[in-house]
Amino acid sequence: MGKATINAAVYDAHGIPAEVLRVEAQPWPVCAPDEVIVAIRAAPINPADLNQIEGKYPIRFPLPATPGFEGAGVVVETGREAGHVSIGAHVILPHNLGTWREACAVKATELIVVPSEIDLVQAAMLKINPLTAWRLLHDYVELKRQDWVIQNAANSAAGRAVIQIARDLGIKTVNVVRREELVEELRMEGGDVVLIDGEALRDEVKESTGGAPIRLGLNAVGGDSALRLMNCLAPGGTLVTYGAMSLQPLKVPNGLLIFKDLRFRGIWINKWYDNASQAERMETFNRIFEMAKRGLLHTNVEKSYSLSQIREAVERAAQPKRNGKIIFEFGDSRL
Amino acid sequence: MGKATINAAVYDAHGIPAEVLRVEAQPWPVCAPDEVIVAIRAAPINPADLNQIEGKYPIRFPLPATPGFEGAGVVVETGREAGHVSIGAHVILPHNLGTWREACAVKATELIVVPSEIDLVQAAMLKINPLTAWRLLHDYVELKRQDWVIQNAANSAAGRAVIQIARDLGIKTVNVVRREELVEELRMEGGDVVLIDGEALRDEVKESTGGAPIRLGLNAVGGDSALRLMNCLAPGGTLVTYGAMSLQPLKVPNGLLIFKDLRFRGIWINKWYDNASQAERMETFNRIFEMAKRGLLHTNVEKSYSLSQIREAVERAAQPKRNGKIIFEFGDSRL
Repeated sequence: MGKATINAAVYDAHGIPAEVLRVEAQPWPVCAPDEVIVAIRAAPINPADLNQIEGKYPIRFPLPATPGFEGAGVVVETGREAGHVSIGAHVILPHNLGTWREACAVKATELIVVPSEIDLVQAAMLKINPLTAWRLLHDYVELKRQDWVIQNAANSAAGRAVIQIARDLGIKTVNVVRREELVEELRMEGGDVVLIDGEALRDEVKESTGGAPIRLGLNAVGGDSALRLMNCLAPGGTLVTYGAMSLQPLKVPNGLLIFKDLRFRGIWINKWYDNASQAERMETFNRIFEMAKRGLLHTNVEKSYSLSQIREAVERAAQPKRNGKIIFEFGDSRL
Repeated sequence: MGKATINAAVYDAHGIPAEVLRVEAQPWPVCAPDEVIVAIRAAPINPADLNQIEGKYPIRFPLPATPGFEGAGVVVETGREAGHVSIGAHVILPHNLGTWREACAVKATELIVVPSEIDLVQAAMLKINPLTAWRLLHDYVELKRQDWVIQNAANSAAGRAVIQIARDLGIKTVNVVRREELVEELRMEGGDVVLIDGEALRDEVKESTGGAPIRLGLNAVGGDSALRLMNCLAPGGTLVTYGAMSLQPLKVPNGLLIFKDLRFRGIWINKWYDNASQAERMETFNRIFEMAKRGLLHTNVEKSYSLSQIREAVERAAQPKRNGKIIFEFGDSRL
């Protein structure tokens, strides 16, 4: 059955990730009848992972814990009652078991089987950001083709997924970024309008869209940036918050609620996932896989690391102005 | 046809109400075929009236203008095509014609006929606050009997209407006020729990309600008071803003949107009124009239003024810690 141990990232206490994380050898996982063993091939570092290690995430795992909300791998062993999932299948893992490890046992019913045409490294990054983008564009405002949405942090992984999914749906995007060099890049990825955030935003948006009403705003920043998005929304519009990069709360002038009828919501994608049936999850994944097969929803990887480089990896992931994700890649530990 | 002129409050420029308001004699209104003439008997001073005179309201009337969003009176003349409204009928006026005057011409279809058992001074105060309270309890969260709501500024006219309507619907209220002397008073009016606002609010609410989930919060204050309400809401709860007494914006921690799934809305009752059909308006008014006939939704009047005392009246209305509404009462100018 291959080697008898796996490597796993572990933290014994909450704190600065580079300080509290270590790698330990653990026994090869045991497969219950309704489970399969997945050899994990790739697991990205998302902001939520770092928050969780720091103890700032609303759900804490019992310590010691292995971090990692997202990952993908290959099924290498199946329990007697594991049903439809067969050895060799490419799968996306659920978010509650800690993906920063070489292998794990998972209930077969909790797995998302990925079409084999999709690269496993890319598959490892489809569960949080493209899924968030998909739900953001579907669950809050009924959008028709040619409708506009506006988002800040448009160069984030979720922001780029919003651009591509919106374009695929015929929805137009105003993309707000902080760095000039991103403007052309996001236009190339399909952003209809890309603008630099600042006090003139509202006028620039009006000019770029011909004054079209924007009924959905997507906020991953908070603070003043969120306020500028609010001021670009049409009466009755909705601002959905899915991130808080500025660490500043939303500041909502009362008049925007009372007279402009703006609505404010938030999304926690892991919660959506937990509340959704497997059929509802697959309905979204099937659309995302279909786009991925056409080469869309590709997430740029700035650098991939092995688990032994964990401290370097989390330090790099915490730095701003990256050009892509930081991800762990695991060799096939069993072969 | 009675006397040939009426008195009307007028302002020629936006500014401090006591400085810019004057009273002028105007010709007795002319009645078009589809209109009636209403001799106005009572018109309250609401915060929105003062905001409008100050130029801080989102809709400005052409100047010179007569203020007053709310009022009630008696039909004294009817046009040939005025339909169902007959002379002597008690009516509530629409909010777009300026009620601080002794008489006005109104399209018959815009009037709300009030059952004659309801005192006209009380009728003059049913359109904004009880209507707001009714919509707040019906349009945002589906509430069942025994469910809880929480509100600040619970001693305001709208807040007291919320207490009475909620009680009538079997919904329980947590009422937050700033002054100790209001606690017993609001309990007597039907408030299930009345608490003084402050840092301990969340714990006190939990204790008073036995930890019951509160899915609707009603905010007329903003700022820190609104934040304390948010912290009392259950996950997935909604905070509806209908006033901004602190003049401070809402401060919404991102985590309350993302992880707690709180939702934020606002209501502008005049807008609701404009968008509603006359049938929809009457559906609510009928319920409100039915309560008023039972002696409920009674608004305390601190002092009533004649139009000639207008400056004194608006100054008093602008003062905090009143014990009731400031209202204009007009004699029957035609008899």
